Amino acid sequence: MNHSLSRRDLLKASALAAAALPFLNHESEAAQNGAATDPWRGLKIGVATYTFREFPIEQAIKGIQRVGMKYVSIKNVKNHVDLSHTTEERKQRAQMFRDAGLIPLSVGNVSMRGSDADIRKGFEYAKDVGVTTIVCAPRRDAIPLLDQLVKEFDIKLAIHNHGPEDKGYFPSPYDAMDLISKYDKRIGLCIDVGHTARAGVDPAESIIKCKDRLYDLHLKDISALGDRNTPIEGGRGILNIKAILQALIKIKYQGLAGYEYEKDGKDPLPGLAETIGYTRGLLANLK
Amino acid sequence: MNHSLSRRDLLKASALAAAALPFLNHESEAAQNGAATDPWRGLKIGVATYTFREFPIEQAIKGIQRVGMKYVSIKNVKNHVDLSHTTEERKQRAQMFRDAGLIPLSVGNVSMRGSDADIRKGFEYAKDVGVTTIVCAPRRDAIPLLDQLVKEFDIKLAIHNHGPEDKGYFPSPYDAMDLISKYDKRIGLCIDVGHTARAGVDPAESIIKCKDRLYDLHLKDISALGDRNTPIEGGRGILNIKAILQALIKIKYQGLAGYEYEKDGKDPLPGLAETIGYTRGLLANLK
Repeated sequence: MNHSLSRRDLLKASALAAAALPFLNHESEAAQNGAATDPWRGLKIGVATYTFREFPIEQAIKGIQRVGMKYVSIKNVKNHVDLSHTTEERKQRAQMFRDAGLIPLSVGNVSMRGSDADIRKGFEYAKDVGVTTIVCAPRRDAIPLLDQLVKEFDIKLAIHNHGPEDKGYFPSPYDAMDLISKYDKRIGLCIDVGHTARAGVDPAESIIKCKDRLYDLHLKDISALGDRNTPIEGGRGILNIKAILQALIKIKYQGLAGYEYEKDGKDPLPGLAETIGYTRGLLANLK
Repeated sequence: MNHSLSRRDLLKASALAAAALPFLNHESEAAQNGAATDPWRGLKIGVATYTFREFPIEQAIKGIQRVGMKYVSIKNVKNHVDLSHTTEERKQRAQMFRDAGLIPLSVGNVSMRGSDADIRKGFEYAKDVGVTTIVCAPRRDAIPLLDQLVKEFDIKLAIHNHGPEDKGYFPSPYDAMDLISKYDKRIGLCIDVGHTARAGVDPAESIIKCKDRLYDLHLKDISALGDRNTPIEGGRGILNIKAILQALIKIKYQGLAGYEYEKDGKDPLPGLAETIGYTRGLLANLK
């Protein structure tokens, strides 16, 4: 038996010494609350690739890696993975995310306001990409068809609400919730916190109320209420993102909470990074 | 008298309505603590242009504006404002920051380890730039000379500590504090929180203990202790930045708390932005 200290022993001793220093981060309040090993507090914080819609897939992947994120919602645009791509292309392009260590959890927002045949194509697309959730914005009269398709494909839908200008469709999450409640439970919601607030609804409250059908989430900040979407860096706007995160933790939300940073389409990285940092700072102190 | 509502009245009514919505940011805990109008809680959070050392002054200015910061410490490099520039050039280049709405509060880190004549040039440089504080790293035996110069120029010195590898100079803030305590009060400190931690000293505690001579601060995060500087995005590292901010608020610190983001010299903006966002998130919840 070797009594000298191995390199591993030394590293362990060094880690223990570090843990005893009160000025280190893992001794902070967050750590004492059990957040030491996961700054995201069990949430799947991530990025909707719509943020990088003007960039090719390679740049989108690099941008998401740069901000230290892992979970993604893939936008159906030609730059990323699209309905116009062949099955083979879809699989190959989705694999690019996985090869980079990223985890696609959903696709969308897929409109689903076209023909029944077009709607079916959305499901085939999601199946090819290999995700279990489609963020969508369907015709209201398509719900019976969607009820059949979620059963056939065993893929969940997350109906996306789009604020006051989405009149006749889904301004707030409740407009979708009312319509889908008697249908298959695989039909659920993607609450967009910005559009929800602009519809006059408290995003955090809607998260709690719709928790049983909440399958995706678009995180963001906005600079004003009203009919116009005014995206801004997280923390610079008017949304109480802290309350939103608290609601997600409270319901033990396991779907994607993806930042859709819509501002600065031609240079989204700094604003996305600021937003992610803000989220980390908020979560470090959440009770 | 006109009884119809003016545009100003309508805006006011709209603002009141917004304030009544509980899901808005200004109704958050931070707001209740009086932080509604200043997310920085009275601190002069800013940027040390060393962060943009590899970029021309125009890009440095744009980067600082992009992350929404105002207060700066100008690095003495040719790209920004340097000792090698003429008086006229220094004034003109410093004015570029001011014309962009930025507020230079200090220069440095100026080494001041050369001849007496060289040390004097540092003061002339600061005078030309128009700041009242020089972050510096002087010879220990230069303190009597510096004592004369701070009187002559009425410019403050902020001696910068540089961690364990700064042996013989100033590893921790206390090494400087011990040396300067009997000299003119205009000789003070720039506590570098990363190098301080690596010297085995609690940065937040040193801020409290040295508060009477604290004139500048280098904020940052590091990924490890030890002799090597390992800069990283704020919040991803091991420093308890929350405790540092709490200490600064406690002493009502009025100097620059400037982020010196040393990582990614060729592309610092995303990491700086993430760091600033993290700070905003932490401050939103600080008691």
